[in-house]
Amino acid sequence: MIRLDDLFVHGWKIYQDTDGFCFGTDAILLSAFAAEKRFSHAVDLCCGTGILPLLLASYDCAKHVCGVEISPHSVDLARRSVSLNGIGDRVEILCEDLRSCSLPCGKADLVTANPPYFLPGSGKEPRKEVLIGRQEDLCTFSDVTDCASRLLKFGGRFCFVHKPERLCEVMSVASACGLEPKVLRLVYPKADRPPELILVECKKGAASGLKVEPPFVLYESDGSETEMFHAVHRF
Amino acid sequence: MIRLDDLFVHGWKIYQDTDGFCFGTDAILLSAFAAEKRFSHAVDLCCGTGILPLLLASYDCAKHVCGVEISPHSVDLARRSVSLNGIGDRVEILCEDLRSCSLPCGKADLVTANPPYFLPGSGKEPRKEVLIGRQEDLCTFSDVTDCASRLLKFGGRFCFVHKPERLCEVMSVASACGLEPKVLRLVYPKADRPPELILVECKKGAASGLKVEPPFVLYESDGSETEMFHAVHRF
Repeated sequence: MIRLDDLFVHGWKIYQDTDGFCFGTDAILLSAFAAEKRFSHAVDLCCGTGILPLLLASYDCAKHVCGVEISPHSVDLARRSVSLNGIGDRVEILCEDLRSCSLPCGKADLVTANPPYFLPGSGKEPRKEVLIGRQEDLCTFSDVTDCASRLLKFGGRFCFVHKPERLCEVMSVASACGLEPKVLRLVYPKADRPPELILVECKKGAASGLKVEPPFVLYESDGSETEMFHAVHRF
Repeated sequence: MIRLDDLFVHGWKIYQDTDGFCFGTDAILLSAFAAEKRFSHAVDLCCGTGILPLLLASYDCAKHVCGVEISPHSVDLARRSVSLNGIGDRVEILCEDLRSCSLPCGKADLVTANPPYFLPGSGKEPRKEVLIGRQEDLCTFSDVTDCASRLLKFGGRFCFVHKPERLCEVMSVASACGLEPKVLRLVYPKADRPPELILVECKKGAASGLKVEPPFVLYESDGSETEMFHAVHRF
């Protein structure tokens, strides 16, 4: 079922397919994390129905945001949202395989990705759109970093969200293709629980040296949102 | 000045040189972290004046603990502590360069290391014993993991403490020599501050997949010790 949801910014809305892959807290946290520093030309890889391109375009500094997605169904919904919000002059959605992306090299100052978290065959998902978003069948994390590295200018930032289980692997893959991890934010559901997500900022061509941030905790022990989560959680 | 400090376990004491490198919170946290799982034959690399070998030997499961240290002055103090505590049958201190360590391969089920944290030339330290303990002039982290990998049996654990800045690098170095990071504990001075230390448990020959633990916080906002720190901090 196609649903139209509020984005709670500029009165914008987003189309989503409730049978497909709907955006979650990870997308919201990633957009806020990436936008803590200024950018002008951003590309979001594996953009799905366009949540990241829309959220990034809502910041004043954003001159142009491009989303890249391989699923024609998701691209169709993303383009309908862009059109509905009247921001077609600043937001573009490409239906492309990021392994052969047609965007120009070295032009973006920010690339974001909320990539598939799981290795192929590690779960059972019934529908294709869900599978594309969850498992690495169509693109591995290495495909994502290769593409990000090509698109970024020297000194540009690559911000992504992933699962803590794969922290070592994804950081070393990013570093190996010239995207050096510089900031790590661990996201904990509660202060006494293991983290559920990692947010990583890499910088193209930077020297090694990681800044790990204070714990980012989503909920107080009584289940209410923490102040830091409330500040980014507008939904 | 040579000082004799209480270890607050079994009435044991440790000699330290106040002009040299004295043990800190990192050693205490590492011993508690490493001893959360059983072991029988342990080796501590870069053991300094022997704090880790002594603390590890205080656990009932410890059959034999060997410390390896390149500085003869530190080795002398470590041996005096072992002798004073009457545990020479179970604790041995070797004065060796770990790059050519004479211990047998594949025998240890636990190797620990509180290695030099800083790259050569990254600080100014006046005395040689301090320099050995702080900077990687005499052994790089790769030297430490190579030695740990040789000494461990298949499935054995390598537990180390390091600085968050070098998280990416040390994890990828460990992984590259067959010591796969399995557990990561981040140690925060306070709940709203960046972490100051990382504790990592690697397993020889294991598949990838990291478990990141809940935040380990040392002090409450009022400066008192947290419960979790108090439980390991006997000094």
